[in-house]
Amino acid sequence: MATLLHIDSSVFPTGASASRAVADAFLTSWKEQHPEGTVIHRDLSANPVAHITADAHTAGFADPATHTPEQAAAFAERVKLIEELEQADAVLIGAPMYNFTIPSTLKAWLDNVILIGRTAGTEDAKVKGTPVTVIASRGGAYGPGTPREGSEYVQNYLSAVFTTLAMEVEFIVPELTMAPRNPAMSDLIPLYEASRERALGDAATKAKELAEHLAA
Amino acid sequence: MATLLHIDSSVFPTGASASRAVADAFLTSWKEQHPEGTVIHRDLSANPVAHITADAHTAGFADPATHTPEQAAAFAERVKLIEELEQADAVLIGAPMYNFTIPSTLKAWLDNVILIGRTAGTEDAKVKGTPVTVIASRGGAYGPGTPREGSEYVQNYLSAVFTTLAMEVEFIVPELTMAPRNPAMSDLIPLYEASRERALGDAATKAKELAEHLAA
Repeated sequence: MATLLHIDSSVFPTGASASRAVADAFLTSWKEQHPEGTVIHRDLSANPVAHITADAHTAGFADPATHTPEQAAAFAERVKLIEELEQADAVLIGAPMYNFTIPSTLKAWLDNVILIGRTAGTEDAKVKGTPVTVIASRGGAYGPGTPREGSEYVQNYLSAVFTTLAMEVEFIVPELTMAPRNPAMSDLIPLYEASRERALGDAATKAKELAEHLAA
Repeated sequence: MATLLHIDSSVFPTGASASRAVADAFLTSWKEQHPEGTVIHRDLSANPVAHITADAHTAGFADPATHTPEQAAAFAERVKLIEELEQADAVLIGAPMYNFTIPSTLKAWLDNVILIGRTAGTEDAKVKGTPVTVIASRGGAYGPGTPREGSEYVQNYLSAVFTTLAMEVEFIVPELTMAPRNPAMSDLIPLYEASRERALGDAATKAKELAEHLAA
């Protein structure tokens, strides 16, 4: 039975969040394929994980027998997050763009789960090869040929991260999500709507493909 | 009398942090030039600011008279950070690279202070033209020609951010800081030491230049 780890980082609730809406389309399709499966949901906006600290960092490179009580406590929190990632057959991440890159809550999660010798930098990493689908929503458009092309630090950054983790990342990009709320973007509403429909469809398809891939 | 806003984000204390050591060289030189000046120190690792929330975000675009109590409280915290930035004649930021980009604590601070109509997207922004010196320390090397060149998301990202804020950003980059602690990098210790010396000197020089520029 398949396990999906679903990470949300939008500050907005379902109904007001493009990344959550597209993630929902993925989840609906996923659950049809895996009615008995497990979905672990971690909402980083509602329940942020701790920023990395010196204790949490140094504990990752020290023999646990030598940990101070502070290191042991901080490391236990990291291990909980790492085990959640390691047990996942697939990962779904909502990663809205805030100020050109990922939310601070998502960066805090990454700083906890990226651990050289366990999730990175080792052939034996349990996360190796796990598929990751990122819903990279954004208020504007940052694709090739757009004026903001050079300011895209969600897909570019997360590609570097998941390559380091040897995970198989794919992006679904609902863009121009501010168009319905920003009068200056009203001409872009049709493009926004098309992007949203495409993202919803791609998310459902991707979940089905992953299910077939995992069953194979 | 000049005001410097000094932001730290290293998880490590002075003595174990390259970015703090180089910032200290800047500060020593700055204080020589401005013995009567004000230095506002904000240590984001010791005292993180809140992640942005839906209330804090939406409050930034609503008439304050319409704010809910939750929006008003969240917005007051943002305004405190924004005013600190607006009153600075110069800004010094310690931005160590963690997992290819800035610490989550620094991203949280940016999400608070970047506000369209006040610090960004307006000709009247008080922060416009303020010089920012970023101490962008990193354990490895990510310069042009290095194998990791494409994975640099500190300078690249912060350049995009401070361009948006119309602030004048410069980077000082102590690199290979892991060399003394990682046996696999022992051959790189001379390069690390040269990089550190250069950064310490550049920081002192930069502070002096800024002082002369502000006095002019």
